Amino acid sequence: MELVAQALAGNRRALARLLTHVENNSAQARAILAALHPHTGRAHIVGVTGAPGTGKSTLVNELAKRLRAQGHTVGVVAVDPSSPFSGGALLGDRVRMQDLAGDSGVFVRSMATRGSLGGLAQASGDVVKVLDAVGFDVTLVETVGAGQAEVDIARTAHTTVVVEAPGLGDEVQALKAGLLEIADVLVVNKADRPGAAQAVQALQGMLDLGRDSAPGRGEEWQPPVLQTVALDGVGVDEVVEAIAAHRAYLQRSGLWMRREQERARSDLKRLLERALLEQILAAVGEEELQRWVERIAAREMDTFAAVQAMLDVWQKNHTPSQ
Amino acid sequence: MELVAQALAGNRRALARLLTHVENNSAQARAILAALHPHTGRAHIVGVTGAPGTGKSTLVNELAKRLRAQGHTVGVVAVDPSSPFSGGALLGDRVRMQDLAGDSGVFVRSMATRGSLGGLAQASGDVVKVLDAVGFDVTLVETVGAGQAEVDIARTAHTTVVVEAPGLGDEVQALKAGLLEIADVLVVNKADRPGAAQAVQALQGMLDLGRDSAPGRGEEWQPPVLQTVALDGVGVDEVVEAIAAHRAYLQRSGLWMRREQERARSDLKRLLERALLEQILAAVGEEELQRWVERIAAREMDTFAAVQAMLDVWQKNHTPSQ
Repeated sequence: MELVAQALAGNRRALARLLTHVENNSAQARAILAALHPHTGRAHIVGVTGAPGTGKSTLVNELAKRLRAQGHTVGVVAVDPSSPFSGGALLGDRVRMQDLAGDSGVFVRSMATRGSLGGLAQASGDVVKVLDAVGFDVTLVETVGAGQAEVDIARTAHTTVVVEAPGLGDEVQALKAGLLEIADVLVVNKADRPGAAQAVQALQGMLDLGRDSAPGRGEEWQPPVLQTVALDGVGVDEVVEAIAAHRAYLQRSGLWMRREQERARSDLKRLLERALLEQILAAVGEEELQRWVERIAAREMDTFAAVQAMLDVWQKNHTPSQ
Repeated sequence: MELVAQALAGNRRALARLLTHVENNSAQARAILAALHPHTGRAHIVGVTGAPGTGKSTLVNELAKRLRAQGHTVGVVAVDPSSPFSGGALLGDRVRMQDLAGDSGVFVRSMATRGSLGGLAQASGDVVKVLDAVGFDVTLVETVGAGQAEVDIARTAHTTVVVEAPGLGDEVQALKAGLLEIADVLVVNKADRPGAAQAVQALQGMLDLGRDSAPGRGEEWQPPVLQTVALDGVGVDEVVEAIAAHRAYLQRSGLWMRREQERARSDLKRLLERALLEQILAAVGEEELQRWVERIAAREMDTFAAVQAMLDVWQKNHTPSQ
């Protein structure tokens, strides 16, 4: 494909168009991802996640600058909630990333959420693959909020940085709980605020608690708890170092390849599932599907029974392909 | 099933055990849901969602009290982020709901997040079905946070209440954008704080903007923007009234049945997908699956090619069932 070749050769406009195909899951998306697949697998994918108000975007901005200064090319994928009526991002991180603008070694993509559960995780995963294929050394995936989908997006990263901040109130604090178990590096940002030391202590305590319950699996990664004031650039170098150390750990321990395989496995299952569903729905047809739906909604039959009946009909009519 | 019969007869302990089966997707979960299905379809399912710090839990608590006072039985499903190491909820809403304790007309279920994307939406949807079947008139589904999965949970409700609060900062404000389009009732809680009037105005402005772009589809629901101070019970009656008015609108317009059918359709697709994937994975076997995964991770083939090859092998070996 012409567009793929251009993007692989470093053409930024071609890259942007590939990403649009992939984000919208267009007719060409599969062919594009297939063509790019052999070129993937080199990038270090770093998830940066945390509750609202922790200053993740600022930290991502600073991380990108430091990584560039070290000579790495950097992709940034910012997963923003969609604006209700325009479909675009309200607080586009492109705005905040202005001091990176004009540097061809950085590419920032702000994503609007795509509506369906799982759609966003898939689209952002595909965007990360494209950036990997065209040669970005590190891709920072920033997820706003702390919902389940965001946690799942972070989970597909090699290294997950969880960002906290002191004094965000009880409810926000509770949100972090689900994030702790996926953290490879913990950052207490806004560390010049009151309560930073307690936040570090609390996180360290929770980590120690978790460590006790999962002992002796060979060399273990100990998630460091770091403090930053990202707005002033304070402590950011240490975060860059911790990210690099985690990468080295993953490669040394064989976990890097294991994570690649886990990602391949979940991709494979997801695409299989979708292909199978498409096949059966095409075979059943919209009219018959609607009849099953009406029977379920009218409580004439339950969903499991309908599934079984549909499978039976399909398998009876299904002639093995040549 | 004995347990189902007991729960339908009003036994709370049996209900709790049913919910545990359903939440854990146990071996009996399918049979339980199938047995309960004919009893579902009467409850009014109300999603209450919003950014962290808006006071959703307090509002839910107050709504439950008013609905009880009107003679309705009330289920509350609180979807909390999981505690990292215990698997339980950190700030269990059971704690906050203490003034409802001892009233057999209220049942509160606090859910820990279940790890996988989609898992939580499915489990909470199933919990709501159980509460519907055993006869709760209204079920309030409170989602903490504002991630994509939470939005999807809210989307399965008949009526979605989106809660805001003044002065939560830019990032939190941005989160609300994705929620606005699913709002049937908007509440600015903590309305005694500075900035409440501006928050109402801003929301009203965004609603008006959206209304212009989708004109003339018959009788339209106009989401009201209400103000509450839930902690003092101020304005909560108006929220209860708006929820009831929205229910009447859904029934009058035929949207109630349409939402039931949408829910049935997405349930059917989800379960079909799962059943098909289980079939093919069982046929392929773990060893062969792992070989495909390794080939993808080693970049010897792309995921789409692997899917196609697996489907081909499966269909060739697939004998139609009797």
